[in-house]
Amino acid sequence: MTHAALNTRFTQRFQLTTPIALAPMALATGGALAAACAQAGALGLVGGGYGDLAWTQREYALAHDLLKDDTASHARLGCGFITWKLDENAEALDWVLTQKPCAIMLSFGDPRPYAERIAQAGAQLICQVQRLDQVPHALEAGASVIVAQGGEAGGHGANALEGRSTFTLVPEIADYLAAHSPDTLLLAAGGVADGRGLAAALMLGADGALVGSRLWATTESLAAAGAKTQATHTNGDGTARSMVFDILRRKNWPAPYDFRAIRNDLHRALESNVAALQTNPDAARADYDAGVKAGDFTRAHATVGEAVGLIADIPAAQTVIARITQQAQRLLGK
Amino acid sequence: MTHAALNTRFTQRFQLTTPIALAPMALATGGALAAACAQAGALGLVGGGYGDLAWTQREYALAHDLLKDDTASHARLGCGFITWKLDENAEALDWVLTQKPCAIMLSFGDPRPYAERIAQAGAQLICQVQRLDQVPHALEAGASVIVAQGGEAGGHGANALEGRSTFTLVPEIADYLAAHSPDTLLLAAGGVADGRGLAAALMLGADGALVGSRLWATTESLAAAGAKTQATHTNGDGTARSMVFDILRRKNWPAPYDFRAIRNDLHRALESNVAALQTNPDAARADYDAGVKAGDFTRAHATVGEAVGLIADIPAAQTVIARITQQAQRLLGK
Ligand SMILES: Cc1cc2nc3c(=O)[nH]c(=O)nc-3n(C[C@H](O)[C@H](O)[C@H](O)COP(=O)(O)O)c2cc1C
Ligand SMILES: Cc1cc2nc3c(=O)[nH]c(=O)nc-3n(C[C@H](O)[C@H](O)[C@H](O)COP(=O)(O)O)c2cc1C
Repeated sequence: MTHAALNTRFTQRFQLTTPIALAPMALATGGALAAACAQAGALGLVGGGYGDLAWTQREYALAHDLLKDDTASHARLGCGFITWKLDENAEALDWVLTQKPCAIMLSFGDPRPYAERIAQAGAQLICQVQRLDQVPHALEAGASVIVAQGGEAGGHGANALEGRSTFTLVPEIADYLAAHSPDTLLLAAGGVADGRGLAAALMLGADGALVGSRLWATTESLAAAGAKTQATHTNGDGTARSMVFDILRRKNWPAPYDFRAIRNDLHRALESNVAALQTNPDAARADYDAGVKAGDFTRAHATVGEAVGLIADIPAAQTVIARITQQAQRLLGK
Repeated sequence: MTHAALNTRFTQRFQLTTPIALAPMALATGGALAAACAQAGALGLVGGGYGDLAWTQREYALAHDLLKDDTASHARLGCGFITWKLDENAEALDWVLTQKPCAIMLSFGDPRPYAERIAQAGAQLICQVQRLDQVPHALEAGASVIVAQGGEAGGHGANALEGRSTFTLVPEIADYLAAHSPDTLLLAAGGVADGRGLAAALMLGADGALVGSRLWATTESLAAAGAKTQATHTNGDGTARSMVFDILRRKNWPAPYDFRAIRNDLHRALESNVAALQTNPDAARADYDAGVKAGDFTRAHATVGEAVGLIADIPAAQTVIARITQQAQRLLGK
């Protein structure tokens, strides 16, 4: 039963018991996390990320298996992909579409080339945007839901010059949708880690929230244990957005995207001269690779957003969803 | 009479009828705007800014005159200053303290050297911070109110590497204050331009909001008419944070601060090579100066934040305060 204050158009459209979507976090949101969130009444989006077929098949199948005797939760399963990577190879998307996902989320690129096959498979299209000016393409693609992602989010997002914040992007897109496409739903992403954030998202005009960092820091998440531990010791001042880790990881992200993670020693050493790093990355890459190999998070990256300051423990995902939901209910019930 | 949902510790401490503070915007928040906001039941902070004595005396005296027959509104009058500028010359602060302001707001620097004289004058100290790690100094200075300013704010704030967003900074500081200084109040700043923003700020744990951009775009504001008009035509994607305008204006702001304004043609031409601009600013400065002289806002700066996307008109300040208040009441009254 959904509490009245949290009974939104989003819970209704996706048969959820709380207006929360699990972010499809590349390499972190595996099948176990997606299944746990779906069972807790949220939308469970597997992190298809860069579109690796074997990874996606394995994790999606795991979620499927975990939920095969629970039709209601199974119907809350979907998958997310990085759009510009699909432009190179969309076989993981095509495979997921054979599995009857309730939704496909696309971020970071033009969703229009994928709209038709997603609709034909009977899945709802969710489009994550970083700026108001990306909304028209998402609507052209027939998006059922827009996710407004602010720069405080963990992982990739728009850089400082092009990016927006959750606090202003959500109400502005809400106004845009009210005028141009009132049946399209809106989720807030970036900074939602507790019931205060969910309640605030609803006040700003969203129908719910997409939660990444807070659900990354759970037992089911596939993130490295050392990264999770580091996150519990880091406050919200301790992350930064830059191109540093994408360069170190040899990821060729297109403009205007960069990446927020914990600002560790290696990041600090490189962040003030990104141009030099770009020209001559070899020594820094070797240092980074050694850090990853050693599980040394003074050099390896731990991908969380500013909401890390609201994360102090690593519980089960179900506990996180219940806490957020109950706190939002209390705040909105007043 | 304050509506129950908007009756907060902030309205009680400052005898307000709505939990809103007018931001002390340098050169924009003159006496007329501060007086209008105080009369509308908000806290009216004159924009002492860089601490120019003549400007501050003139505008503070204007507010005083406008409110001299209205004791309740007069008691809501205060002034704000840029702290690192006071370190060079604090005569404007010292003069204001002779005028019995209810509050002094200090931003961008260490407030501790000014705490004693402010307390002795019987004024409450309000400290604006951009990061959690600035809160301890504010508490040492005896701050009655902390303003948590996110990077979406118009004007100066912390840069992309060091800065935070309203959405995560507010709840994190709320938790910090609850643990370390429960009588210190908290305002959200950055992106609050309508009742949705005020309601969201309260959900995030603030006792109220400090509003800049939305009150900059009013009839009483001293901002240039051409800048205000440009703002009504600009959406929230159209601002950026950088050092460009500070270099063009020959302002020597210390790290980690930079400046958000409308990203006009001149800004776009310079933003991708700030190091070159810093080394060789003369030609760009000449272009900028000509733009200011001509009132040409493709070159001159218009100082607003991301909330500009929620600003479509230039009403009286009283209208803005009433709209924000009524919309927040409706949202929170549900
Ligand atoms: C570890 C991590 C990986 C992410 N990977 C992806 C991704 O592959 N695709 C995507 O659309 N978003 C990705 N995101 C961004 C999320 O979709 C979402 O916008 C973000 O997590 C919301 O902000 P929050 O982290 O403050 O909750 C990732 C976020 C994190 C923290
Ligand atoms: C035109 C303008 C000038 C500003 N000048 C100052 C200032 O002199 N001192 C200060 O503390 N803050 C200043 N600010 C920042 C405000 O105090 C406040 O943090 C900000 O306006 C809040 O975000 P918003 O613009 O989205 O409402 C200024 C803001 C604007 C828009």
